[in-house]
Amino acid sequence: MPQAERLAARRRLSVAQGHLQSIVKMLDDPEVYCMDVLRQIKAVQGALDGAGSVVLRGHLHAHVATASERGDSAEIVEELMQALKYR
Amino acid sequence: MPQAERLAARRRLSVAQGHLQSIVKMLDDPEVYCMDVLRQIKAVQGALDGAGSVVLRGHLHAHVATASERGDSAEIVEELMQALKYR
Amino acid sequence: MPQAERLAARRRLSVAQGHLQSIVKMLDDPEVYCMDVLRQIKAVQGALDGAGSVVLRGHLHAHVATASERGDSAEIVEELMQALKYR
Amino acid sequence: MPQAERLAARRRLSVAQGHLQSIVKMLDDPEVYCMDVLRQIKAVQGALDGAGSVVLRGHLHAHVATASERGDSAEIVEELMQALKYR
Repeated sequence: MPQAERLAARRRLSVAQGHLQSIVKMLDDPEVYCMDVLRQIKAVQGALDGAGSVVLRGHLHAHVATASERGDSAEIVEELMQALKYR
Repeated sequence: MPQAERLAARRRLSVAQGHLQSIVKMLDDPEVYCMDVLRQIKAVQGALDGAGSVVLRGHLHAHVATASERGDSAEIVEELMQALKYR
Repeated sequence: MPQAERLAARRRLSVAQGHLQSIVKMLDDPEVYCMDVLRQIKAVQGALDGAGSVVLRGHLHAHVATASERGDSAEIVEELMQALKYR
Repeated sequence: MPQAERLAARRRLSVAQGHLQSIVKMLDDPEVYCMDVLRQIKAVQGALDGAGSVVLRGHLHAHVATASERGDSAEIVEELMQALKYR
């Protein structure tokens, strides 16, 4: 994985992890409001989408755009299609 | 937030947080493969979707289904629509 | 289904259908560019998201917010949870 | 766009269009049930996801995997990232 993207993704995921930890703590409060929790979960998902985009961009540059030169387009494309539909 | 859903969501988010921490560690390795990281991120997002569903179900039972009785349907529905489109 | 939402959803879906028809025609051209097609498909999906929101809002008002009064919260909530995760 | 993918996408979108037309007709009935409409809309969105995947796979093979050979990786990757986040 290209270093710039690796470090950028690491930083974003680390922030998302702290955010997730704070949501776990919110849930210790019996009076917490459902919609506040749901909004925070959605915010973390947005952050993970962002980190996933960083990783994907690095992958497209480092491995997909060069696949024809290496001669492994079929495998690389199939692997990416699987990963994208994953969820 | 109803207690059963609160505790179930807390447990799931706590597991997701541990998973996210392990992805941050994966990214310390310069040789990590992009697609492995992307798949792990998607797995955490699936876990957050699951936790979000638990919270949503609790909210529908505790606050939305009873909105007409309380007389605040307009606010409750609008708040939920906002939260669902959030991301 | 409440009439206002029914007519609004009908109008939006009708527009989306025309849009989809124009994409089918684009694909008769052997020179069409993949990314142009993908962008148009995404635009139609955005329109369907919009129509789905209209339907959901009507459903929340007409059936979910009144569920406790009728005494069928369990069924109504479960049905909605299934429909939301559908895709 | 590669011909196999173009024709496959055309066929799928054409089926989705017929499906969408039948939902528009459902909405002429004042007694139609919201959740039935929502489920049908989600089914069409699933079909559009499928058609989008066909288009994306063709694009990855024909344009992205060969980008480094042509020397336009930067543009091709950026264009794809934009299209993927579109919605």
